[in-house]
Amino acid sequence: MSVRVALGQMNAIVGDLEGNASKMADWTAMATEAGADLVCFPELAITGYPPEDLVLRPDFVRDNLEALEELAAQTAGGCAVLTGFVDRTRAGLHNAAALLSGGEVVARYHKVKLPNYGVFDEQRYFVPGQAACPVRLASSALGISVCEDAWAPGKPWTSYAELRTKVIPNINASPYHRGKALERLEVCRDRAAETGAWIVYVNMVGGQDELVFDGGSMVVSPGGELVWHAAMFDEDLLIVDIDVPDAPTGYPGPDVAVRMAKPPLTDPSRGPWPEGPEEIYRALVLGLGDYVRKNGFKEVVVGLSGGIDSALTAALAADALGKGSVRTVAMPSPFSSAESVEDALDVARRLDVRLDEIRIDDVFKAYLSALEDVFRGTNEDIAEENLQARIRGNILMAMSNKFGSLVLTTGNKSELATGYSTLYGDMAGGFAPIKDVPKTLVYELCRWRNSQAQAPVPGGQAPAPIPERVLTKEPSAELRPDQKDSDSLPPYELLDPVLEGYVEQDRGPEELIESGMDPELVWKVVGLVDRAEYKRRQAPPGVKITPKAFGRDRRLPITNAYRRTRPPMRAEGPTSTRATKE
Amino acid sequence: MSVRVALGQMNAIVGDLEGNASKMADWTAMATEAGADLVCFPELAITGYPPEDLVLRPDFVRDNLEALEELAAQTAGGCAVLTGFVDRTRAGLHNAAALLSGGEVVARYHKVKLPNYGVFDEQRYFVPGQAACPVRLASSALGISVCEDAWAPGKPWTSYAELRTKVIPNINASPYHRGKALERLEVCRDRAAETGAWIVYVNMVGGQDELVFDGGSMVVSPGGELVWHAAMFDEDLLIVDIDVPDAPTGYPGPDVAVRMAKPPLTDPSRGPWPEGPEEIYRALVLGLGDYVRKNGFKEVVVGLSGGIDSALTAALAADALGKGSVRTVAMPSPFSSAESVEDALDVARRLDVRLDEIRIDDVFKAYLSALEDVFRGTNEDIAEENLQARIRGNILMAMSNKFGSLVLTTGNKSELATGYSTLYGDMAGGFAPIKDVPKTLVYELCRWRNSQAQAPVPGGQAPAPIPERVLTKEPSAELRPDQKDSDSLPPYELLDPVLEGYVEQDRGPEELIESGMDPELVWKVVGLVDRAEYKRRQAPPGVKITPKAFGRDRRLPITNAYRRTRPPMRAEGPTSTRATKE
Repeated sequence: MSVRVALGQMNAIVGDLEGNASKMADWTAMATEAGADLVCFPELAITGYPPEDLVLRPDFVRDNLEALEELAAQTAGGCAVLTGFVDRTRAGLHNAAALLSGGEVVARYHKVKLPNYGVFDEQRYFVPGQAACPVRLASSALGISVCEDAWAPGKPWTSYAELRTKVIPNINASPYHRGKALERLEVCRDRAAETGAWIVYVNMVGGQDELVFDGGSMVVSPGGELVWHAAMFDEDLLIVDIDVPDAPTGYPGPDVAVRMAKPPLTDPSRGPWPEGPEEIYRALVLGLGDYVRKNGFKEVVVGLSGGIDSALTAALAADALGKGSVRTVAMPSPFSSAESVEDALDVARRLDVRLDEIRIDDVFKAYLSALEDVFRGTNEDIAEENLQARIRGNILMAMSNKFGSLVLTTGNKSELATGYSTLYGDMAGGFAPIKDVPKTLVYELCRWRNSQAQAPVPGGQAPAPIPERVLTKEPSAELRPDQKDSDSLPPYELLDPVLEGYVEQDRGPEELIESGMDPELVWKVVGLVDRAEYKRRQAPPGVKITPKAFGRDRRLPITNAYRRTRPPMRAEGPTSTRATKE
Repeated sequence: MSVRVALGQMNAIVGDLEGNASKMADWTAMATEAGADLVCFPELAITGYPPEDLVLRPDFVRDNLEALEELAAQTAGGCAVLTGFVDRTRAGLHNAAALLSGGEVVARYHKVKLPNYGVFDEQRYFVPGQAACPVRLASSALGISVCEDAWAPGKPWTSYAELRTKVIPNINASPYHRGKALERLEVCRDRAAETGAWIVYVNMVGGQDELVFDGGSMVVSPGGELVWHAAMFDEDLLIVDIDVPDAPTGYPGPDVAVRMAKPPLTDPSRGPWPEGPEEIYRALVLGLGDYVRKNGFKEVVVGLSGGIDSALTAALAADALGKGSVRTVAMPSPFSSAESVEDALDVARRLDVRLDEIRIDDVFKAYLSALEDVFRGTNEDIAEENLQARIRGNILMAMSNKFGSLVLTTGNKSELATGYSTLYGDMAGGFAPIKDVPKTLVYELCRWRNSQAQAPVPGGQAPAPIPERVLTKEPSAELRPDQKDSDSLPPYELLDPVLEGYVEQDRGPEELIESGMDPELVWKVVGLVDRAEYKRRQAPPGVKITPKAFGRDRRLPITNAYRRTRPPMRAEGPTSTRATKE
C-alpha cells in the first residue's frame, strides 16, 4: 500500500490569519486534485512564525482558532490537512498541530519540546504537550510531531517506535543559518533510525523580520535516505507516494479513511539545494525581499559610497525586488575621493538603477557654523566625522519620508560587532540586509554574484554588478583625509575569526588565545565588541545567516562591567560612536 | 532564642564580579561587627541581575564561581553569608544561593521556579532546582528560597512547612513597577501563613539598563505583619533580631554554629516607603542616575524644547546627577515660538544648568537646498518636519561625541506608543528616562516635583523646576506653523487609558470597546501602536515603571499583518516616522 503525501512548503505571514488559512485552503485543493491523502503545512502556519507576544492577546488566540475552524470547513471535501496553530487548553497555550478531515479537527497534537534558546522564546508562551498523537490515515500508521521535537530522542518518538508508526510528519518553522539543511537531515536520519518510520519534514519558507525560513522540506526513509526534497528559498508543493504496510490492528488514534482518486504522480524530483555563497546569497535575497513586501513597501533606497558593502546591498536589493524598485544616492563629502563617486556611479549603471547625487558639503558647513560657538577651542575629531555620516542618514530618511521608500543600511557584521559604524548615520534605516555577514564573506558573496553575471539568479541583472576596483581597493569610511578601516581595525582576515569565536561560539578571550590567536588582537576585539552593545541595541533588523546573529539571538546587557578594566586599552564608555575613536 | 539577621540590600553591577564580591565582603564585616549571625544578599548578587547571555559564556560562569570562593575566603572569620550566584552542575546552570560559613560553601540552593515572562528569560539560561535547602543556623531552623519561588505555593514551601522551618530568607532581584512593593508584601504574607515562618525578603537596589530594582527589603512575621522594612531606592543594611525557638532535633541540613558577640541592636526602623508620584519619580531618578554612572559618563545633555517632556527630563537629570552634570541646548527653528525659547531658558535657569542656544535655521536651509533637485515638484510634508527633528538629533550627538556627554531623549510613553516621534530625531540618544511614563503621568510628576521645591529630594534643586506656563500650554512639536499634538493624536486624557488597556493589559480592541471606550478612538490608537513597532525597535532603553514597558517586556514582530486592514484608516507601512502623517 502507499500513502500520497503533499508537503506544503508555504510562505506564511505573521498575523495574517485569514490570508494564511486561505492559502492553505487553495493548496489543499491542489493537493486533493493531485490525489494526495494528506497535505502537511508548517508549524504555526495559521499564525505565521514567530507570532511573539501576539499570542499573549486573547483576541489573537481566539481569531487563530476561528481561522482553523474556517480552514477545516473549507477543506471538508478534500484530502486530510495537517497544520500548525495555537491551541488553548486548561493548562495554557500550546504550539499545536491539528489534523483536519471531513470539516472537523480529528486530532490535536501539542509540541512536547519547546525551544527557549537562541532566537526562540517558546517557553514564554506555551506549555509543553505530554503525549504522542497516533492517527490511522488512509490505512497507514501515522504519528504527528512538531519541529524541536525532532531534535532529540524521547517523547514522542519512543511512543511511535513502540507503536510501529510508519509515517511521521514533522512540521517546522526552522530558521536558516548557513549549512542548516544538512543539520536537519542528520536529525531526520536519527529519528528515522530510532522509529523505523518515514520522516516527512515540512518547513516554512520566507522572511520574517530577522529570520529567514529556507524551506528545504524533505522525506527521509527509515533507512536514512533523503528520498525526496523540496526547493530551498521558494514555496513548493511537493507530492510523493510513500509505500508502507497498512497499520496493524489495534493501532490507536482516530481513523481517517480519506482515500482520494489517484492520478499519476507528477515527478517529485527537484534540483539540488544551493550551497556555499549561493545558499547565503539567496537567503539574503529572500529575507530582504519579504521584509520589503510584507511591510507594504514598493521601493528601497540605498546610499552608495563606492565601497563594497553598499554595492552588495544594492545588488541584493535589485535581485530581491527588481531594478525598478531600487533607487540609490551618492552623497560625496569633501573627503570622498573621485574614485569613490565613479565607483558608485558604476555600480548603479551596472545594476541599471536610478542614482541621485547629493553633495553634503554645504550642509556639513552649515552644521560646523551652527556649532562654532559651542565647539570653540576643540580639535576636529570623531564629532565632525560622525556628522558627515549622520547628514547622509538624514538625507536618506528625508527621501524615505518624501517618497515612501525603505532605507536599507549597508553595514556588515564585522562593523556592527566592533562598533565601526555611526548611530543615526550609516546605521539609519529600516532594514540591514548584510548585518549578519562578516566582511570577508561580503567579498565572497560579491565574487560569487559576479560569477553569475551570465546566469542571473531569479530577477537578477545581467552584467557583473560589482566593479573590480570595488573588490580590490582598500576599505575606507572616507570621513577624514586618507582614512582607512585598517587605521582602526585589525585586518578583516584576522578580525573575522576572532569575531566568530567570541560572538558566534561564546568562547572567552583566554580560550581564543589558547587556540593560537594573538593576545593583543583578541583583547582589542573583545573590548570593541563589548563596548558597542549600546549601538547594536538601536540597529535595524537584518537577515540572520550565521548560528548566532546580533539581535534576539544574542542578548547582552548594555551596562556590563565584566572585564571592562581587563583589556589592555583605555576605558571608554558608550560615548564614542566609531571604533575610530580608539 | 533569637537570630540576628542582616538584610544586605545592595546595588550590584552586572558583570562586576570582583566589585560585587568585594562590596559583600565589606558589608559582611559591618554585619559581623553589629553582631549578625547571618547576612543575606540579593539574588545573583555576584553577577548582578540580569546577566543575560553573559551566563552562556563558560569563562563568565567560571569567574563567577571564583568570585564566590573568594568571598567565602574573605568572610571566613565573620558571620554566615547568604548570596546569589550562578551554579554549574551536570544538569546545567542554576540560579543559585550559597550559604558561606568558615570560609566554605556549606549549602547550595537552586531556584525552583524560573520566571520566563515579562522581562524575564530565566529558562533560557537555567535548569530548575528540585529540592528545598534546610539549614540549622545559630540553632535556628532556616530554609533558603530565591525570588520567584515566593510567588506561588508548592516547592520549596511545602517542605519548609513540613520541617517547621522558622526563618526563610527569600533573596531577590525584583524589578520595580508602580505599586510593586505592596504586591510583594502580599506574597510574603501568603508564604508566611503557609509555613508559619518568618520571611526575610531581601531585594536588590539600583538601575540596570531598563530595569530599576527598588529595594524595599522586609521582614514579615508568621502572622503576616510587616515588622521591619528597609529603604526604597537606596542601599541599606537592615539588621534585625528575630525571636524563634531552637530548631527541633532531627532538623536536616548542615549545622552552622556561628554565634557572634551581640552588641545592642541599632534601631531598625526606617521612614515610610514613598508612594504615588514620589515613588515613580524616585524610580526614574535612580534608573537614570545608575545608567549614567555605571556606564562611566560624567555628564548628560538634553535638548530643551520649552515643552513639558524635556523640562521633566532635565529636572530628573539634575536630581539624579547634580546640576553640574547636566547641560541643555535650545535649538529653535523657524517654527519655534518665542514662548518656547523663553520657557526653555526659564527651565534651565530654574535648574541652574548650562544652556546653549543653537539655531537650526541655516542647517535646515542647507538641507532643503541640497535636496532641491530630488524634491522638485513635491509638496512640503513630513519629510521637512522630520528633518528639523533630525537636525536637532545630530547636534546633540555631535555634542555627545565632542564632550563625552550622554544624550537623553525626552519622549514619553504616549508618544512612543503611537509613533508620535522621529527616528534619529527626538528619538536619538543613549537613554530615554521617561519612555515608560504616559503623558498624563508626566504632568502629575511635574506637579509633584514642583510641590517639593521647598523640600528637595536628595540632590534636588530648590526652586520649582517646571514653569507654570509649561504645565498649562497646549503640547506641540512645532515642526510646522501652528502645529498641535491634538492635530494628530486624541487628547491625552482619552489616549492614555486606551494605551494602558491595549499595551499594558493586552486587551484587544473589541474588549476595550465593550468596556465603554469609543470605537473610533480605539481603532485609531490600536492602528497607531501596531504600525510604530519598527520605531520602538530602534529606541534607546529607559526606565520601566509600569507593569508592561516597551522593550524586553513586550516583544512584538515588526512584520505583523494581524488586523492590518481592519481599522478604518488608510493602510500605511512603516515609512512614516510621525503619527502626524495620518
